[in-house]
Amino acid sequence: MTYTPPIRDQAFLLREVLEIDRYANLPGFSEAAGEVLDQILEGAGQFAAEVLAPLNPVGDKQGCAWSPDHSVKTPDGFAEAYRQLVEGGWMALGAEPAYGGQGLPHVVYMAFSEVMSGANMAFGMYPGLTHGAYSAIRVGGTEAQKQLYLPKLASGQWCGTMNLTEPHCGTDLGLIRTKAVPQPDGSYRITGQKIWISGGEHDMAENIVHLVLARIEGAPAGTRGISLFVVPKFIPDADGNPGERNSVFCAGLEEKMGIHGNATCVMQHEGATGWLVGEENRGLQVMFVMMNEARIGVGLQAIAQAEAAYQAAAAFSKERLQMRSLTGPKNPDGPADPIIVHPDVRRMLMDSRAIVEGGRAFLFWTALHGDLSHVSPEEDVRRKGADYMALLTPVVKGFLTDRGFKACSDALQVHGGSGFTEHFPASQYVRDTRITMIYEGTNGIQALDLVGRKLAAEGGRAAMTFFAEIDAFVAAHDDRADLAPFVGPLAEAKAQLQEATMWLMQNGLVNPENAGAASTDYLQLFGLTALAYMWALSAKAALAKIAAGETDPFYQTKVTLARYYMERILPESGAHLAKLKTGAEVMMSLPAEAF
Amino acid sequence: MTYTPPIRDQAFLLREVLEIDRYANLPGFSEAAGEVLDQILEGAGQFAAEVLAPLNPVGDKQGCAWSPDHSVKTPDGFAEAYRQLVEGGWMALGAEPAYGGQGLPHVVYMAFSEVMSGANMAFGMYPGLTHGAYSAIRVGGTEAQKQLYLPKLASGQWCGTMNLTEPHCGTDLGLIRTKAVPQPDGSYRITGQKIWISGGEHDMAENIVHLVLARIEGAPAGTRGISLFVVPKFIPDADGNPGERNSVFCAGLEEKMGIHGNATCVMQHEGATGWLVGEENRGLQVMFVMMNEARIGVGLQAIAQAEAAYQAAAAFSKERLQMRSLTGPKNPDGPADPIIVHPDVRRMLMDSRAIVEGGRAFLFWTALHGDLSHVSPEEDVRRKGADYMALLTPVVKGFLTDRGFKACSDALQVHGGSGFTEHFPASQYVRDTRITMIYEGTNGIQALDLVGRKLAAEGGRAAMTFFAEIDAFVAAHDDRADLAPFVGPLAEAKAQLQEATMWLMQNGLVNPENAGAASTDYLQLFGLTALAYMWALSAKAALAKIAAGETDPFYQTKVTLARYYMERILPESGAHLAKLKTGAEVMMSLPAEAF
Repeated sequence: MTYTPPIRDQAFLLREVLEIDRYANLPGFSEAAGEVLDQILEGAGQFAAEVLAPLNPVGDKQGCAWSPDHSVKTPDGFAEAYRQLVEGGWMALGAEPAYGGQGLPHVVYMAFSEVMSGANMAFGMYPGLTHGAYSAIRVGGTEAQKQLYLPKLASGQWCGTMNLTEPHCGTDLGLIRTKAVPQPDGSYRITGQKIWISGGEHDMAENIVHLVLARIEGAPAGTRGISLFVVPKFIPDADGNPGERNSVFCAGLEEKMGIHGNATCVMQHEGATGWLVGEENRGLQVMFVMMNEARIGVGLQAIAQAEAAYQAAAAFSKERLQMRSLTGPKNPDGPADPIIVHPDVRRMLMDSRAIVEGGRAFLFWTALHGDLSHVSPEEDVRRKGADYMALLTPVVKGFLTDRGFKACSDALQVHGGSGFTEHFPASQYVRDTRITMIYEGTNGIQALDLVGRKLAAEGGRAAMTFFAEIDAFVAAHDDRADLAPFVGPLAEAKAQLQEATMWLMQNGLVNPENAGAASTDYLQLFGLTALAYMWALSAKAALAKIAAGETDPFYQTKVTLARYYMERILPESGAHLAKLKTGAEVMMSLPAEAF
Repeated sequence: MTYTPPIRDQAFLLREVLEIDRYANLPGFSEAAGEVLDQILEGAGQFAAEVLAPLNPVGDKQGCAWSPDHSVKTPDGFAEAYRQLVEGGWMALGAEPAYGGQGLPHVVYMAFSEVMSGANMAFGMYPGLTHGAYSAIRVGGTEAQKQLYLPKLASGQWCGTMNLTEPHCGTDLGLIRTKAVPQPDGSYRITGQKIWISGGEHDMAENIVHLVLARIEGAPAGTRGISLFVVPKFIPDADGNPGERNSVFCAGLEEKMGIHGNATCVMQHEGATGWLVGEENRGLQVMFVMMNEARIGVGLQAIAQAEAAYQAAAAFSKERLQMRSLTGPKNPDGPADPIIVHPDVRRMLMDSRAIVEGGRAFLFWTALHGDLSHVSPEEDVRRKGADYMALLTPVVKGFLTDRGFKACSDALQVHGGSGFTEHFPASQYVRDTRITMIYEGTNGIQALDLVGRKLAAEGGRAAMTFFAEIDAFVAAHDDRADLAPFVGPLAEAKAQLQEATMWLMQNGLVNPENAGAASTDYLQLFGLTALAYMWALSAKAALAKIAAGETDPFYQTKVTLARYYMERILPESGAHLAKLKTGAEVMMSLPAEAF
């Protein structure tokens, strides 16, 4: 089992679909132009394939081990791989130069992040959460906090975590009980139990920086009384080096279905010393900066894993000999044909590929808008970028994790009985990826965020802008015969999405449960339409290359996959529209006792 | 975590939908009339809930243990539970009186089989395969073989297995290499390796009867040279008791994603003594009797597991307090509302329920036709029963396992993060159920069997009969206003299925890859339509009760679920039709190197 980093497709997206060279005059983008980009993609891919991928089954089988002294041992090889990650400067790719980072656009960092998650999702979570902690302190921290923590987090010398969940609350953070008592020196004493803390304790870094949600004594009830604190495992001394051991301990590890290589910790804060990040009682605002970034990252994990699972399935389908092709032997000298000749095997591979490549395009396209929201000199581009990031984050997270998991399950199915055994990698991809539909906000929460908050924001400006962009694309390419197989279905899907949006506006206000009942189907319809747009953009870019005489079969494959998406995946949009328009009445009519 | 056997729904289906009392004059059915049926359902449910369900997590966590002496220890409690199963006479329910069985209709045996699989799927596989071995010998064995083996298998005193798969062939049984050498005494020496043999070795019964596919020396190549043998672990002595140890050994166990409580064995036949079952070179015919029965049983496993997973999710959703209802607090004195108030949680529960109860109806309805194919005095009823069994077996297996797995995954999702931890049962249901989409013929093979073999058999007689039955139901109830929400959608789905069937007839012959490319979507469309029919039948039965003054809310719940199915699941039919009509061209156009 080998993992091949999808460098070719990443470069195609960045260069030929997104044309990031257009932005070479903007901060960060200039650092990722030309051959530098190739070097980054290739180096990242090599590190992922050679260092991280071989540790993936090791992590699954060994898991992490907790000791009564509250230490946690990560699987063999993880600590050494992490050391290489830090030394290679990979962590610093996406951090600001002011804190020792390379300041590359987030869209380029995502390419690295993808191959890390594709090669070893459980490993990738340690740096992933560290990046999240970096972002939270960058957004909410004081200048002193930034100077103290950001360089260490940017390089990866220290790791970071998010301490949100408590036994009685995950989604409903207003119920948090962990308390913070102000001390005369300006610090706080934090006391409470946090659960499901990914990377809460481990042996890979000299310090671990916990970002902890807690309630300051006397704070208002609910979400308006939650503050954010930074609680380092070792309190930095005057020189900024790890000093005194703080009173935050790992009390045990969770047994999980997957991501065994990541330590999922019960964390006890026993009067731990913490410092406020951002304003009192406004901790959720800062945490949501971190959370939104994490949600895009989770969509990326699912697509990265689906790519890896697809690769395993494709390799298996070319090696495994079983039955003959329906149109006569394709491997006449062998005892049977490779199973890739069978249409139903092909269907699963094509489905996965259309989701993986369309999903990657959607991730990169969205991330580019996120970059532009920060660095574009044009106000309307910055505003559009911010609108899109807000609107599309729940779609990226919800749609891509649902579909990524399905792709992993299809990859297992291609393996037949072998897929169910742990001798092949397929089971691990399914078990690991399943969490992406849940953490950083379940997909149901994503759907509610989309219909209840994002759609309505600024009078629906973001969605209207997105619809208008698709309309403009359709109008501009209406007369292109070669694009007809893509433009027509895209226009139809967008019309259905608009109809669904109208239905929501008319019926969600009358009865909010109509919006709740429609939310998941609406998110699916949105995701299907977004990927149709991505495939239309990709097909256009590929056709341009072909028209210019390019003979690399990569481009024809792209066009074929775009057609497949339109023919074999997009037709699901009509079912989602039909379902959501039935409203909440029947769905909600049974009393709870009937369940 | 408790498992509540769905006795009420089983009784509703048997009595009020299928009206099995109509057949009380037929062999077997007379034994299951009136209160006897209640006693069977209740006794089976009690055994499943009290004895088997508590062992389900034990089996998952302990798994089976292989020893170098080739013995296998099942999880704690399994052997004792099996003893109780045999002593309680449960195994004998569905076997013929001639061999010590109770001769009950298979549809009643299925009710028992469901609760066994729902409570503990890994355990249920041991008796399930024993029943399969019983059927193979009953169909293919000599009178002496029947007298020797059937009473022991009927009671469960001995267990049975199917030895089909070899490392290089699972689906493609024509490649089997295990060889059988005739001996002067009429027996054969069997040599070869079989893999993935469920229950191949264990400590629960005094003997294990392997049914083994092998090739007699000099037999023709391919599937026409495969014979079936009975290879007992201990060769029966003159009195029919276990005697000399045969040369068939378990060489190891498979590590698997789920069903850890079932021993999945590598079996070495080292010149083992076996006896031919049925004719030389016609082993697959007998094996397929066993296999078809097993396929229905696998569909049942998936629905049984989905029921159990749904129960766990429903219980969790009523206990877990998180966020407030969109229409205002429903649990104002608590810190938050139970999550069942949220529409998207309700959606998952309703989806699962509609699939579980519709799927159970489809299983029982199909099984009743199987019974009638054997015992009806009317030739046309017998023929229709046999036609339906053949036609619907791949639909039952493929559709119900796909949807049952989805329901288990939804049940995990309702649990949120808890579902991903192994402290809750949700993960085990997902991991265990995943195999149902694979074993006894992958779902892709089911789809090919449906479009390539079953549809065309006898000039399409079975499908035309099924379509005509739905047409007749629609015509007979067209004027019933209370049935309009069910009859209309059913008619529409059936029209789509018929359109798909026409498309297959027109395009599958031109290019068989069109049939292959359409097969899975066709199977899904068939399953959706079949469940629509089941829900229409169920709604009709429930409405009749309500009209007669019955106030048990069970009936109104049934009608609501039927409406939900029509509104929220059946609309998928259109997408499957649209997809399959795109044919094989794009799906098959990439060369293998492009993957």
